[in-house]
Amino acid sequence: MLILVLNAGSSSLKYQLINVETAEVKASGLCERIGIDGVMKHEIAEHRKLEIDQPMPTHKEAIEFVLNILTHDDTKVIETIDEIKAIGHRIVHGGEYFKKSVLITPDVIRKIEELIPLAPLHNPAHLLGIRICKQLLPDKPNVAVFDTAFHQTMPEENYLYAVPHEDYLEHHLRKYGFHGTSHYYVSNEAIKMLNKRDTKVIVCHLGNGSSMCAVKDGKSIDTTMGLTPLEGLVMGTRSGDIDAGVIPYLMDRKGMSPDEIIDYLNKKSGILGVSGISSDLREVLKAAEDGDHRSKVCIEMMSNRIKKYLCSYIGLLGGVDAICFTAGIGENADVIREKACAGLEFLGIEIDKRKNKKRESGNREINKDDAPIKIYVIPTNEEYVIARDTYNLVKKD
Amino acid sequence: MLILVLNAGSSSLKYQLINVETAEVKASGLCERIGIDGVMKHEIAEHRKLEIDQPMPTHKEAIEFVLNILTHDDTKVIETIDEIKAIGHRIVHGGEYFKKSVLITPDVIRKIEELIPLAPLHNPAHLLGIRICKQLLPDKPNVAVFDTAFHQTMPEENYLYAVPHEDYLEHHLRKYGFHGTSHYYVSNEAIKMLNKRDTKVIVCHLGNGSSMCAVKDGKSIDTTMGLTPLEGLVMGTRSGDIDAGVIPYLMDRKGMSPDEIIDYLNKKSGILGVSGISSDLREVLKAAEDGDHRSKVCIEMMSNRIKKYLCSYIGLLGGVDAICFTAGIGENADVIREKACAGLEFLGIEIDKRKNKKRESGNREINKDDAPIKIYVIPTNEEYVIARDTYNLVKKD
Repeated sequence: MLILVLNAGSSSLKYQLINVETAEVKASGLCERIGIDGVMKHEIAEHRKLEIDQPMPTHKEAIEFVLNILTHDDTKVIETIDEIKAIGHRIVHGGEYFKKSVLITPDVIRKIEELIPLAPLHNPAHLLGIRICKQLLPDKPNVAVFDTAFHQTMPEENYLYAVPHEDYLEHHLRKYGFHGTSHYYVSNEAIKMLNKRDTKVIVCHLGNGSSMCAVKDGKSIDTTMGLTPLEGLVMGTRSGDIDAGVIPYLMDRKGMSPDEIIDYLNKKSGILGVSGISSDLREVLKAAEDGDHRSKVCIEMMSNRIKKYLCSYIGLLGGVDAICFTAGIGENADVIREKACAGLEFLGIEIDKRKNKKRESGNREINKDDAPIKIYVIPTNEEYVIARDTYNLVKKD
Repeated sequence: MLILVLNAGSSSLKYQLINVETAEVKASGLCERIGIDGVMKHEIAEHRKLEIDQPMPTHKEAIEFVLNILTHDDTKVIETIDEIKAIGHRIVHGGEYFKKSVLITPDVIRKIEELIPLAPLHNPAHLLGIRICKQLLPDKPNVAVFDTAFHQTMPEENYLYAVPHEDYLEHHLRKYGFHGTSHYYVSNEAIKMLNKRDTKVIVCHLGNGSSMCAVKDGKSIDTTMGLTPLEGLVMGTRSGDIDAGVIPYLMDRKGMSPDEIIDYLNKKSGILGVSGISSDLREVLKAAEDGDHRSKVCIEMMSNRIKKYLCSYIGLLGGVDAICFTAGIGENADVIREKACAGLEFLGIEIDKRKNKKRESGNREINKDDAPIKIYVIPTNEEYVIARDTYNLVKKD
């Protein structure tokens, strides 16, 4: 069964056409600069790549163009759009309403709308994506897969902030966490690899946005991102954990407005801010090798923050069976993996430097052969989870 | 030698008259409501307690009244103020200037003034205290003992935030940490009790304000408070760690100003906010015993946060020799100590429930006899450190 997976952003649209039974990606791509001019990067079956300038005044033209490229001319991978059986939508915020993926009904749409204050940039774009699919593919079922859903199993002592309880009750102020689809997929792969009961797993999703998750018996019990994706690890351009007292301090010292400061903490901080070089870790790693002091400090800060959360999650879980690294940095940056685990041999965390440095694809083990704790690199696959959840909900009908 | 220890707040003044050689406290007390009406709580040699209503329009009248009560009538503990050899001032913020205590010179005063943006409520009050002492006791040396000084040994990967580096260089935006005098005193006591070289100690200073500190070979390498005392643990009325993204969220949802939100996070959150009962843990413990759900959650949140930092500091230190509890909650709340250590037996952290429950004074060990990691309760004594530092600097002259 073919599922179209969509991730609609404010001026972008990511898509994949997936055969769920075989996990084959028939085509994938990204439309960018929607509403500005429009450019599409399209890839067919992982071997043919295209880049097309194409005016996309709104998301509607973008989705039309995606459906067109899938079914026409020499880019054709299916005969008619009727072969697409359902659409799976990635939705950033499901608040406390959604603990798992759901078929999209008018009530689901109302709830995603209601959650806009919690995801003011993302949820409106997702709703747009859903509405256009209902217009262009009126007979196809739509499924919502939420970034927050996997973390809805956190116990209240971990998801509550220490603020007046009324603001949790009235304004839903709490930790939600994100990257749930990835944490779910990776922890599930790890559990299969461990092949045991009563599992304790920690997932480090390290990409441009990064978060960690403590997973007990397959359920999220804590995660590093919070009410928003700003909290937690040092990321590409986000500061991660920081004293909220910096806001009045910067208002006073630099005359910045609160909005400007939040923008600064989200877009000018993290790897970019500390290194002063780039938000792309690869460039910072290169600069550090060439002796750049700020880049070296940046790498230490990132690794240290991961190490601190690793250990605090080991405490919460009462031990750990497997530590998993995933996403762009987690899958590729052996230096960060090595530094995050360094000095933790006394806990049974022993990375094998040779295995860690080896570039391989697929799930792999990088701990020493006789180490009590497994360290895995597991490429994430959020789109596949979205396609599979969609398939399972559609199949039921 | 007699040293007068002063801690001048915005409308309060704490004082102790200490004989440094014998560590005897000859008298101590607290002036409150300075500038409003004025009330003094005074204690002589830890056995006679007085409460006196006394108009104190400014800090000057408060200090005059302290000097008067020490030398007159039946409250007299010294014949003349000339027996006081020096004054030790507790100063909250020493920024990056002060890595240890110093004799107060015009240059020191200039620097404490310069640091007002980092401690807008505290440093001005401290400066007032210093100026009045210079007026009223013109021949006595004054010494400054900083809450931040002990943490100046943190490595830069631990004290820097992941923000643009220019704002550290130009605006001194970094983690400073507080309670340094207490962390120093308690870790030093622990090192004496351990009686070994190469020590790894974690101090949990749990009072109305709370912070933890990782101490390697006697030096602070990390602490939970940050640029301000808002960051870190769940405190009496402070939230501790929270997503900075709550600020725009609450501005938007509740129409609060940034200053109101910072005030809310500092004064209406923490134990008070979560329990809805009190900022005093004793009342919340009682309510939890009576079955109050929010109070139970509050206790879990506090203990969990301590446990997470315990484990992350064990990771940073590469192990731990002793965990120390101090200050009002740390010294008295056996429930918090037990819950913070619960489930960490696999790390060698084994609390002895009977020893933990026993109410005793003085330094004591509460781990199981054969546990590899020591757990200590060590009553803090910041005033004694201030008096001793003052003595050492004055003696040198």
